[in-house]
Amino acid sequence: MKSAIGIDVGGTFIKGGRVGREGIIGATVQVPTGAEHGPEAVIKNIIEVIRSLGMNEEQTGVGIGMPGLVSLDHDTVKYPPNFSGWTVVPLAARIRAAIGFPCIVDNDANCAAIGEAAFGAGREIPDFIFATLGTGVGGGIIINGEVYRGETGAAGEIGHTTIDYRGPQCNCGSFGCVETYVGNRYFCARVEAALATRTDSMLHAMLKEDTGGMSPELVARAAAAGDAFSAQQLYDAGYALGVGLANAMALLDIHTVIVGGGVAQAGELLFAGTRRAITQFSQKPMAEAFRLLPATLGNTAGILGAARLTMGIKR
Amino acid sequence: MKSAIGIDVGGTFIKGGRVGREGIIGATVQVPTGAEHGPEAVIKNIIEVIRSLGMNEEQTGVGIGMPGLVSLDHDTVKYPPNFSGWTVVPLAARIRAAIGFPCIVDNDANCAAIGEAAFGAGREIPDFIFATLGTGVGGGIIINGEVYRGETGAAGEIGHTTIDYRGPQCNCGSFGCVETYVGNRYFCARVEAALATRTDSMLHAMLKEDTGGMSPELVARAAAAGDAFSAQQLYDAGYALGVGLANAMALLDIHTVIVGGGVAQAGELLFAGTRRAITQFSQKPMAEAFRLLPATLGNTAGILGAARLTMGIKR
Repeated sequence: MKSAIGIDVGGTFIKGGRVGREGIIGATVQVPTGAEHGPEAVIKNIIEVIRSLGMNEEQTGVGIGMPGLVSLDHDTVKYPPNFSGWTVVPLAARIRAAIGFPCIVDNDANCAAIGEAAFGAGREIPDFIFATLGTGVGGGIIINGEVYRGETGAAGEIGHTTIDYRGPQCNCGSFGCVETYVGNRYFCARVEAALATRTDSMLHAMLKEDTGGMSPELVARAAAAGDAFSAQQLYDAGYALGVGLANAMALLDIHTVIVGGGVAQAGELLFAGTRRAITQFSQKPMAEAFRLLPATLGNTAGILGAARLTMGIKR
Repeated sequence: MKSAIGIDVGGTFIKGGRVGREGIIGATVQVPTGAEHGPEAVIKNIIEVIRSLGMNEEQTGVGIGMPGLVSLDHDTVKYPPNFSGWTVVPLAARIRAAIGFPCIVDNDANCAAIGEAAFGAGREIPDFIFATLGTGVGGGIIINGEVYRGETGAAGEIGHTTIDYRGPQCNCGSFGCVETYVGNRYFCARVEAALATRTDSMLHAMLKEDTGGMSPELVARAAAAGDAFSAQQLYDAGYALGVGLANAMALLDIHTVIVGGGVAQAGELLFAGTRRAITQFSQKPMAEAFRLLPATLGNTAGILGAARLTMGIKR
């Protein structure tokens, strides 16, 4: 049976797996990315993951998902954020030369969107908007079962659309981006600032017990345990996401939204705010047609979508 | 030579013209829309315009641009704003039955975008975002030389994307829409409110002389004559438009924007603010690739684009 290798290059880990028609075959493999050691180290680590998954004559090739701007020919990766010394690297060509198999690259959020389209919450759904909530807020647009990539491959940046032009400055240089409300770091900073005046929140006690410090997961646990302050913080973040999604829906006339990533694990604690915002910021037919689906593949979406890139199968 | 009839149904006038490969042939025709008398009156007036333009065997048919949501099959018009008693009307079928020629309908902003793509500022430009500034703010998205219509035909609503979720409520029900900053009515109300505290503005004197009352044209004239207050108002409106366009560019990865409509006549008085906002709210490669082109067809864009719909010629 035909299979392909999918590689998901994150800021911390490179994950890989062999993917067949029905999903991941066998165990996945994970090594530290080594992003701080420059592109040569990352390329070496990617090759190590591919080799440890094994190569065989029947595989269609290797697909790689990576942060940053990926060229329209799926070959070059430009300026991935938090990758030291990485300018413009012909990643696919380098991997191809090393392993002797076809290789193709796409943006990591696009790969996760393709994964959900092919194997997850987006099966049977020709058009949807995908958002993945992590340190950053990534996005992808699926039209007619395929990623819409735009003029240079940068389309779908829902995390960097503005919902308040007088809002806080984002790491990207712009202001009031969706990411400044929902991205992990911004969300945690917001919660910490607000917590100072809320001595009644059980988050204070949980923070003392938890060695990991503030995190969306901790806030979600507090909210699930009945902490009103934490619930409000998640609701507000979900609401901000909803304003950005309403904008994307108005432009694209796409009614289905699939949301994945760490913060999305909070589920309805987050999504209640999102639904409310969609109702307030969309015109009626759009608000009525709207449906929000949680992503179903978790952190394997990137591996699955990257592999799918090489399989030449629409869906 | 093949030709087609293009009809542009506005809230006040129905305009029509015969269109060939190179543009409008002969004189255009205009009658009052009669929107206040219900759909039957409007249909009668559309037919009158078509008949007065004449019919001939060589024409490909009649294209109609209309406000409201037009079905994906280009046949039905739903709830055009400011059209009395108009719910869901199978407009193309009604016109077809009356005149015996093919008829096809699209949204008025889409028609203007098609007009600019085929005959105006968008020739040779495969992908652009179109905005038309009038009472409302209409939008259209051209991808690969064709209108992107979305799941139901409602795509491109840049006027109803939000740039401040705590902003003023829009006629559409949402908040902080681009239209609440740039749409004629909102713009005039904003200027009037701000003017009360600015006794130094020459707009006061001009308003006394001008019988038409506050209008974007009047503000543009005052600004062109050196009135700093009026110039600031136009800059601010252009800035708000720019935030909305930056959002659309981030989602679509489309770098060319074509702006038409009445307020756009103010030119750089308006666009200076737009350019500034694009620089502030876009990531660097996007801001560098950005170009803003004024629409070149004026109020014939809708006629030209509507006719083009029936001609089956891509570009």
